[in-house]
Order: sequence, then C-alpha cells, then structure tokens
Amino acid sequence: MKVILDLDTGIDDAMALAYTLGRMELELVGVTGTYGNVYTEMGVQNVLNLLAMFGKEDIPVFLGETHALYKETFLRNAVGARIHGQNGVGEVEMAKAKRQAETKSAVDFLIESIQKYGKALTIVATGPLTNLAKALQTMPEIKQQIGSVVIMGGALTVPGNVNAYAEANISKDPEAAKLVLESGIDVTMVGLDVTQRSQLTKVDTQIWRELDTVCGKTYADMVDYYISQHTHSNGTACYLHDPSAAICALHPEWFTMLPMHMTVVTEGEAAGRTIGDATKLRTPNPNVKVCVDVQSEVLEQHLKETFLALFA
Amino acid sequence: MKVILDLDTGIDDAMALAYTLGRMELELVGVTGTYGNVYTEMGVQNVLNLLAMFGKEDIPVFLGETHALYKETFLRNAVGARIHGQNGVGEVEMAKAKRQAETKSAVDFLIESIQKYGKALTIVATGPLTNLAKALQTMPEIKQQIGSVVIMGGALTVPGNVNAYAEANISKDPEAAKLVLESGIDVTMVGLDVTQRSQLTKVDTQIWRELDTVCGKTYADMVDYYISQHTHSNGTACYLHDPSAAICALHPEWFTMLPMHMTVVTEGEAAGRTIGDATKLRTPNPNVKVCVDVQSEVLEQHLKETFLALFA
Repeated sequence: MKVILDLDTGIDDAMALAYTLGRMELELVGVTGTYGNVYTEMGVQNVLNLLAMFGKEDIPVFLGETHALYKETFLRNAVGARIHGQNGVGEVEMAKAKRQAETKSAVDFLIESIQKYGKALTIVATGPLTNLAKALQTMPEIKQQIGSVVIMGGALTVPGNVNAYAEANISKDPEAAKLVLESGIDVTMVGLDVTQRSQLTKVDTQIWRELDTVCGKTYADMVDYYISQHTHSNGTACYLHDPSAAICALHPEWFTMLPMHMTVVTEGEAAGRTIGDATKLRTPNPNVKVCVDVQSEVLEQHLKETFLALFA
Repeated sequence: MKVILDLDTGIDDAMALAYTLGRMELELVGVTGTYGNVYTEMGVQNVLNLLAMFGKEDIPVFLGETHALYKETFLRNAVGARIHGQNGVGEVEMAKAKRQAETKSAVDFLIESIQKYGKALTIVATGPLTNLAKALQTMPEIKQQIGSVVIMGGALTVPGNVNAYAEANISKDPEAAKLVLESGIDVTMVGLDVTQRSQLTKVDTQIWRELDTVCGKTYADMVDYYISQHTHSNGTACYLHDPSAAICALHPEWFTMLPMHMTVVTEGEAAGRTIGDATKLRTPNPNVKVCVDVQSEVLEQHLKETFLALFA
C-alpha cells in the first residue's frame, strides 16, 4: 500500500512515522509537512532528522501550508509547546539531517501523487487538513482520482480536547476540514472517539530504551516526555492519536466504523465540531467512515511489536 | 414481551401507543404519563381517550411527575404546542374516556412493576426521564431488578433539535437523564441519530383515512397535523421519533447500536447534550446502547402494516 503522511511533527506524528516505516506492507512515498503541533518548518525539520536517524533519506519531504486556509498566520499555542515540547519532539536533541526539504510544495506533491497513483494511494493526515484542502481547491478533478484518506481529527461521540466540542486538528482549520469531509472523497475519521481508547505507558518506553539503540533511546525519551504531559493518567500513559490513524490505514478491520455524511462547524463557540449532517440522514452513499470503537489491546500490541522490531 | 409506556402524549407518543397495541408480541401492562410535549394531566387524558377508542380500557394509566427533578414547575413551551397542537393531539376532537387515571402514582407503578416482572419487563420512555429517575431515587435496589429501558431521547452523532447540542426530551430534565444513563441499567438510546432517518407521509395517512374507521380517521388527522409542522420536509413528511423507540424494543435487530458509557451535560449552553463519557473509554461493560443507524425502509413498512391492521 502506497502512503503519504501529512504531519505536523509532533511526538505522536513521530510515532505515526515510525509505525509506517516499521511496516513492510506500507510504502512511504513521501511526507508532507504542515503546521499545528509545531510550525511547518519545525515539523519538517523533525521529519528530516527522524528519517536520517532511520537511514531513510530516500523518502522525500515537502514543506506545506503554514496557516489555515482563511487565516493570515498561524501562532503556535502554549498547549502545543507544552505537550510536544518547544522543539516538537519533547526537547530531545537529534542529529540534524544533512539534506533539506524538496523545493516542490506539499500541495503540488499531493496533487501529482494522486494523479500518479490514483486509488493505490492512501493519504494519512494527522494535522490540520489545510494541505489536502488546498490540493482539492487547486485541482478539483483529483476528487475522482483520489484513493483513501485517513485523518486523525475530530470527535463525534465524545467531547473535544480544545473545548467541549472541538478537537485540536480540526479546530485549527475548520474550513479545510469541512471542505475535505464534505468533498465526497473516501475519508476515514480517526478521532478522539478511538484515539483515547488506546495507550502506551512508561513500561513500554523502558523496553525501547533498554534496546540501547539511538532509535530506541530517542523514541523512549520523546514518548516519555509526551506521557508526562498527559494529565488524564497523571503522567503514566499517553493516548495514541496519530499512530491510530496510520494503523487504521493498514488494519481498518480493528475499528468499528460508522458511515456518515459529516460536516464541520466553522463559526461560533463550537467552531471545529465534527458532526453528522442531519439534512443527509436519508441520503445514500455516505463518504466518511467515522471510527467509533477499536480493539485497543490488539492495536497496542501490534504497535509495540512494530516499534520493537524497528528500534532494535 | 411485557411493556410499560412512559408517555407525554403528544402525537408521536400516540403513534408509539398505537404501535404497541397493534403488535401481538407486546403486552402493554400499563401507561405512565409525564410532562413534555404537554402537561402531565393533558397527556394522560389523551392516553385514556385513545385507549377508549381502541376498546382497551383494561390497560391502567397512571399520572406521573409534573416537572423536572430539580425544578419547581413545568411551563409547556410554544414549540410543543405548535408541533402537537394545543390539546397535544393535533386539535383532533376525541370522545372523552369514561374512566380516569388510577390513583396510584406512575413512580409507584413503575417500582411495583419492576419488582413484579423483573427482566421480563421493558420500559419504553418517550418523554423526559423524570418518572424513571424518581423511581430509581425512591428505590435504588430496582437497578438490579430492572429489565430493559428504551428511551426516545438524545442526539449523539447529529445536532440537537432544541439547539445544536440538546434534544427536547433530555433538555427538559438533564439531571433525570444523567441519573438514568449513568445508573448502569440496560438502556437503549433511540435518539435523533435514528428517529430522523425514518418518516411517514400524507400518502400513508390518506390510506388510514380511507379505511373509514374512527381509529383510522383520528390517526390520519393527528398525523397530518404533525406532518404539517415539519419544516424539514415543507410539511410533507414527519420524523418517527417515539414510534422508533417502541419498534426498537421489539426489533432491536433493525438498529445499529454503539455500546457506550454515556453522560449528560446538566449546565451551561449545552445542557441536555448526551455525549460519551471520555473518562470511561477503557472501562468495560458499557450499559447504554446508542442507536446510530436503522433500516429505515424496513421500519417504515413494518409500522405502516401494523397501523393498517390496527386501524381497519
């Protein structure tokens, strides 16, 4: 399965990246960078450094949009810097990659890849959906060519994590999310409904650390930082937001999905809320599959095994 | 299957009543009345009149609570009077029943019936959940004895109908709903997620009218009034809120259900919102089955056949 990761890296983005690299079934054809947990440039630098660490410098990396569709700028909020660290990877110091991002833009790479690979391509997007929305705006005919899109974003059956209504990725660009979810393309929504059902603990990270490898130590330190910022567990376990989306791309059978026509609230106190379109409850062919449950133990075990093999 | 209907009658409550009377598989052991679409006394009088029309004056009817658990009064709102008519049954004039409600209270009847029938009893509640909540408060041990509860109420995957968050029944007594949903008892939530997927039209009501019976004409006139108040269809079709709950009690296999730990927002702008409890996503044995999809065509056909046989 050919995959593009659209990341705002970010510790859990780094986990989604490692998972994708660790699965032979997935061919990572490129990584596009976006803003969110971090600024776009910072996230792309993190991806370049991580790919260098894994010896995967043949995978191209592209700079994407730096702010929401209808905003002028993006200012990283304090929550993002707290949860992911100032440098986006939990203050872990990594060797700087020798290469830089490609000169082609993320949006152009997305359009070209969709045209090149068609239905064989899965796009896993774990940040605000600005890059993908911009691609759809720039070249609307790719709607007919696009394969699957799996997003980490939204919350349907549980409250948001920005406020009671909105999840962080969607809330950073509700218009982009609305455009993508309402476009009719095949979207799987991996939201807080499921990402908060799966966890890693410091028992897991300690195993990676004891591998005594650069990769193992780096991910153990990053994820330990991330775990320490999770208040729901008093800093003993972290949710698996972005890796759940990558896993869902390969193993949709572990998720319970609800086919729906979805929309996104773009204004008011609930801006960023992802919710079913009540005017389309009798409309056939819903295009969004909302993940509402997951076999957490199976997913966690699979992720741990994949990481252990990759980091060894 | 033994059934108690807890109704705020109300035109769609009247449909749930007719459906229950029309199915041989269901034994209606009593009707408890509550406030909501109407005042409690008005709703109970409507039930008495309808049961008299159907020649079912052996089914006891009980007056229930007249306002929310933690409010002093209930003032019927203009929306209820518009959608169901001033008299609750679309301004249709019915012959007045000769008998009156029982002297026993709805809460006492619920408690006694739960103790008497145990798991064999299904309670279908189509108004605010005050009667049931009061029964649980009065005699907490019935939690262990109670069979199934099927409620028409709430909205999980679509916006509310009072505002973007809350459905009408739940919003009238969020504390009662929270108490019931969090009690651990077996609750099936038939909310706007599914009730807005099924409809009746004036083509259907015309068939009842042409039966040339009192029941057929009465229901045709009532439901025509109800249909005329539905703006989503420009007054050509009505949703099947309360009858969907009664049908779900007998035919759960037509519904897609999501097992969840649910909670209810009791304060602020979203008071009455029914939403998954994010703190219990990894807690086993969720007690609420939230209906999120339904085989609408099967349900509609079944309801029409049941009504046609009953009204003939």
